[in-house]
Amino acid sequence: MQEVRLIEIKEEVLADNGRMAGELRERLTGEGCLLLNIMASPGAGKTSLILRTLEGLKHDFRLGVLEADIDSMVDSEKIAALEVPVVQLRTGGFCHLDAAMVARGLDYLNTKQLDLIIIENVGNLVCPAEFDTGAHRKVMILSVPEGDDKPLKYPLMFTVSDVLVLNKTDYLQAAGFDLEALRRRVLRLNPDIRIFEVSCRTGEGIKEWIGWVAGQLAGTV
Amino acid sequence: MQEVRLIEIKEEVLADNGRMAGELRERLTGEGCLLLNIMASPGAGKTSLILRTLEGLKHDFRLGVLEADIDSMVDSEKIAALEVPVVQLRTGGFCHLDAAMVARGLDYLNTKQLDLIIIENVGNLVCPAEFDTGAHRKVMILSVPEGDDKPLKYPLMFTVSDVLVLNKTDYLQAAGFDLEALRRRVLRLNPDIRIFEVSCRTGEGIKEWIGWVAGQLAGTV
Repeated sequence: MQEVRLIEIKEEVLADNGRMAGELRERLTGEGCLLLNIMASPGAGKTSLILRTLEGLKHDFRLGVLEADIDSMVDSEKIAALEVPVVQLRTGGFCHLDAAMVARGLDYLNTKQLDLIIIENVGNLVCPAEFDTGAHRKVMILSVPEGDDKPLKYPLMFTVSDVLVLNKTDYLQAAGFDLEALRRRVLRLNPDIRIFEVSCRTGEGIKEWIGWVAGQLAGTV
Repeated sequence: MQEVRLIEIKEEVLADNGRMAGELRERLTGEGCLLLNIMASPGAGKTSLILRTLEGLKHDFRLGVLEADIDSMVDSEKIAALEVPVVQLRTGGFCHLDAAMVARGLDYLNTKQLDLIIIENVGNLVCPAEFDTGAHRKVMILSVPEGDDKPLKYPLMFTVSDVLVLNKTDYLQAAGFDLEALRRRVLRLNPDIRIFEVSCRTGEGIKEWIGWVAGQLAGTV
């Protein structure tokens, strides 16, 4: 019988991506540009949180956006209307961004002239969690209507994220959402995660989130 | 308002992959090694068709297999038991193979010494249709229990394939499968496709399929 050669293709692909992500991150650190990767399910409020963040920071910092979530250009036009440079990556159904795709998008932003670039990743709680994009910080959004059980179903996303933004807190009561159960489940996976409770609609909690981002910009990238 | 930069990331990724696939195909042609890419849903009979093909050709040709469908190694051990060299690519949930992954697997097969290498692609009727693996011929399997409506639901796979192997024909009657409707739907998408009707279980129709593969090996790759 022939010997079967086994190749761990996934590990190799992730290792290649990890190398490229590390190089990209190092380059941006040298340029003084912070890269935030925002991940969430479709409809959780990625674009809304980005718009709130741009409004809160655009007078004090030089900002840019890499938009990958959508096939239309409506969201990027909303961002461009704030006079923030935005690149739209049309992914045509790809399930995640990798470091090579992000690097390609950044070619069209003047990273040396920017303090902060926000990536709006593809709307998906699974695949984006596996791919390092080169970002300095990973931020996930969970929206209240998705339910407090999501850490049980998508543990990797909650494990790899530096920050959880719980959005749509104005739905907390209507949705019968158990905030304490959510916190317990999230912290069991990731004791170091920062949790912000916000409503992009009412503006509740946005100041604390903006404060965190500004703190990251002030600190060493 | 800022101008929004639009980057067609999917087209760029596919173009890069296409270049790599073209180079791989050219290299294999020069070495006189034919590469077949077998695609199908999970359970359609990819491994069974490959085993039948190896049995039919292994005395006259030098064969190899690149196995990507499964997470366990059971299938590749069945192939290795036929004394055919096999490389197992453990994809760990990736939805398709691309040319870079195939090239990596081929590094472990002595392509110059082989006449035919069969790729068992990941079990999926969607994503594998989009990625050129570098194979000379694309073969898809549809199994009768999947239904005669599949060309309507997965048109790209039927459009890009050179050959359709309809497997499990021993279920035709039980499944109420409309063979004429299937042919009509497939040929409307792809008038040049070759269709073989086989049952890997009973062996019906296998000779015609094997004859086609042998013909490809005899002809110019």
